[in-house]
Amino acid sequence: MSDHLPQGFRAAGVYSGVKRNPNKLDLSLIFTERPAVATGVYTRNIVCGAPVTLNRERTPTESVQAVVINSGVANACTGDQGYRDAQQMASHVATTCQLDERQVLVMSTGIIGELLPMDKICRGIEAAAAELDTSDDALIAAARGMMTTDTQHKIRSRVIQLNGKQVHITGIAKGAAMIGPNMATMLAVMLTDAAVGVADAQAGLKDAVDESFNCISVDGHTSTSDTVLLLANGAAGGPVLSGPELAKFQATLVEVCEDLAQAIPADGEGATHLITVEVHGCETREAAVTIAKTVADSPLVKTAVAGNDPNWGRIVSAAGYAGIAFDPTQVSLLLNGMLLYERGAPVTFDAKSVSESMRSDRNTAILLLLDEGTASARFWTTDLTAEYVRLNTEYHT
Amino acid sequence: MSDHLPQGFRAAGVYSGVKRNPNKLDLSLIFTERPAVATGVYTRNIVCGAPVTLNRERTPTESVQAVVINSGVANACTGDQGYRDAQQMASHVATTCQLDERQVLVMSTGIIGELLPMDKICRGIEAAAAELDTSDDALIAAARGMMTTDTQHKIRSRVIQLNGKQVHITGIAKGAAMIGPNMATMLAVMLTDAAVGVADAQAGLKDAVDESFNCISVDGHTSTSDTVLLLANGAAGGPVLSGPELAKFQATLVEVCEDLAQAIPADGEGATHLITVEVHGCETREAAVTIAKTVADSPLVKTAVAGNDPNWGRIVSAAGYAGIAFDPTQVSLLLNGMLLYERGAPVTFDAKSVSESMRSDRNTAILLLLDEGTASARFWTTDLTAEYVRLNTEYHT
Repeated sequence: MSDHLPQGFRAAGVYSGVKRNPNKLDLSLIFTERPAVATGVYTRNIVCGAPVTLNRERTPTESVQAVVINSGVANACTGDQGYRDAQQMASHVATTCQLDERQVLVMSTGIIGELLPMDKICRGIEAAAAELDTSDDALIAAARGMMTTDTQHKIRSRVIQLNGKQVHITGIAKGAAMIGPNMATMLAVMLTDAAVGVADAQAGLKDAVDESFNCISVDGHTSTSDTVLLLANGAAGGPVLSGPELAKFQATLVEVCEDLAQAIPADGEGATHLITVEVHGCETREAAVTIAKTVADSPLVKTAVAGNDPNWGRIVSAAGYAGIAFDPTQVSLLLNGMLLYERGAPVTFDAKSVSESMRSDRNTAILLLLDEGTASARFWTTDLTAEYVRLNTEYHT
Repeated sequence: MSDHLPQGFRAAGVYSGVKRNPNKLDLSLIFTERPAVATGVYTRNIVCGAPVTLNRERTPTESVQAVVINSGVANACTGDQGYRDAQQMASHVATTCQLDERQVLVMSTGIIGELLPMDKICRGIEAAAAELDTSDDALIAAARGMMTTDTQHKIRSRVIQLNGKQVHITGIAKGAAMIGPNMATMLAVMLTDAAVGVADAQAGLKDAVDESFNCISVDGHTSTSDTVLLLANGAAGGPVLSGPELAKFQATLVEVCEDLAQAIPADGEGATHLITVEVHGCETREAAVTIAKTVADSPLVKTAVAGNDPNWGRIVSAAGYAGIAFDPTQVSLLLNGMLLYERGAPVTFDAKSVSESMRSDRNTAILLLLDEGTASARFWTTDLTAEYVRLNTEYHT
């Protein structure tokens, strides 16, 4: 029995032959014995892969029993063939596991420009179905089977008491790593044995994603396949959550999503720093997110951090072009807790010791204080190194 | 007499001692004998340097006689000291050249975090005033005196006939090069001996900048000091332009601005390609610009071009996250004139020969065709190389 898999769920990850390296896994299956409430949050890119189209049609729902994920080659096609392949993946899982095709959701990630090798994937689905298990090893295999450029699998989990029942919330994710080889696809599946109503699940997942997966970026490029799914099968027992119990569930869901989201930029092969950009004192949360994201996406800020350079000018000026009105004479900036800029003007600081604090810590904390209101936001990204560029330039050649 | 300087203008560029290397120039002065109509387009960054604040107060106007530009150390302060320094630069020019202080505009570019060495700058102003001249060499010196990381000075010029008079339109600019050492400041001064009304000058410069300097980016970082000025002194003679003559002037102003704007990303030390992103078939020009800029700013697109990789997936997906609604099944893509993607699906193409065409040409042409309307836009940028990151990371350390 797994410490991490919520009750009633089983998982598997196998090698189907799509990836070149047979020591890797490339096909994952998640199964729940009881039909689960399922909801999804999908890429905002208007060019989207066929699995996203298929999942959008099938969620929200109360009857999902399986999620199948293939990695190595992405089903990034927007056309008919892509949709037929996604449908075939679902129907093959349904046949193998004795479900209705519409009870299956689909994810796909990997290089683009090739059609899915459906023979291998169908054999992989059969192999995975035979290995479905409740152990931690099975969950790890499922987390590994969705990886592309990630250097490590990503599982985060919490156990809480709700209505006197022990409830699990567990997520697995794959990220863009520092290298977004094609479209830097981010996929995550959140699993819980809590009993959550379908409307609450949908609203709750959207809010959790807004505070976590939508607050990370590696290179500002939004994939055509980004997907976060939530499956809630109610196997922990107890009534459908409401009131304070629902709020407690929601707060924990946000925590697990934040943990998983941070793990994505933190797993950057080419990266030397995980940067947290925190913005306080905005009129609205949207304004705070926009400023934080603009700072996080600035190549000049990212290269400064890579060079351990406490360059307040690049940070303050990036905030200034975010398109959000604020009083620049009231802006202050702290870097790793040290004040560099106060109410519109640089302060005298020991650049060497700030630089040394950046050099000795993989985490860099940028804190911007404004004076427009009480809303705040956090955003996570990586620094920009020559290694990142080398890896992205040499890809494909 | 200069081939390039419009009638009635004189220019100078000197070494004032602000830059470390005495073989460089760091102070430029532009002077017009007759008071000129003057207008400016300034950074949209809400954090802006003192010279921008000062110029905003003084333009549009009909009485400017001088522009002074210092390079090496930027007056990037938003506070009182920065404003006093900008004011002192203007008043020192006014005293030296016997003008009213309000007839002088100011620009400043260079590293930030230091106060301007006003002694050196004032002596430089006196030296420049003594050297003011109408020769091409004097204009080149002025163009060199505003350079920071540019590898070459930038002058573009046109001569046209308006109302039977020979009219010059000449611009000088300095750019961010590939390396934006601090805030990647872009400065330009457009000079003409045409007689242009102040309202027409203001509207005309804004339109010209929208089609040129606002359609380039090196790293998406908007400087706090970006400024384009237009001075029109009417020395060519003839009436104030109107009707078709004004339209002809405006079209030529756009051409000179486009030529100068393209020269900025083209002068990238770390860059190996100048990328032109052209988007056709949009509902509005704003939509086309937004899509072109989003593709141009994508690090994944920029690294793909650096690697001579005809990666249609990165380009099409970047267009998809621009935030503009379009039908993805009607998108086509040409790279260097070769069709890679047609109406929503990749076509079979010879990747080797497309890659070879990218390798052998410093210019890369990305052409996206949509089917939403008739508006189009062009945007210019550079590729993203490891050399760029190295230069920006090592700056300051």
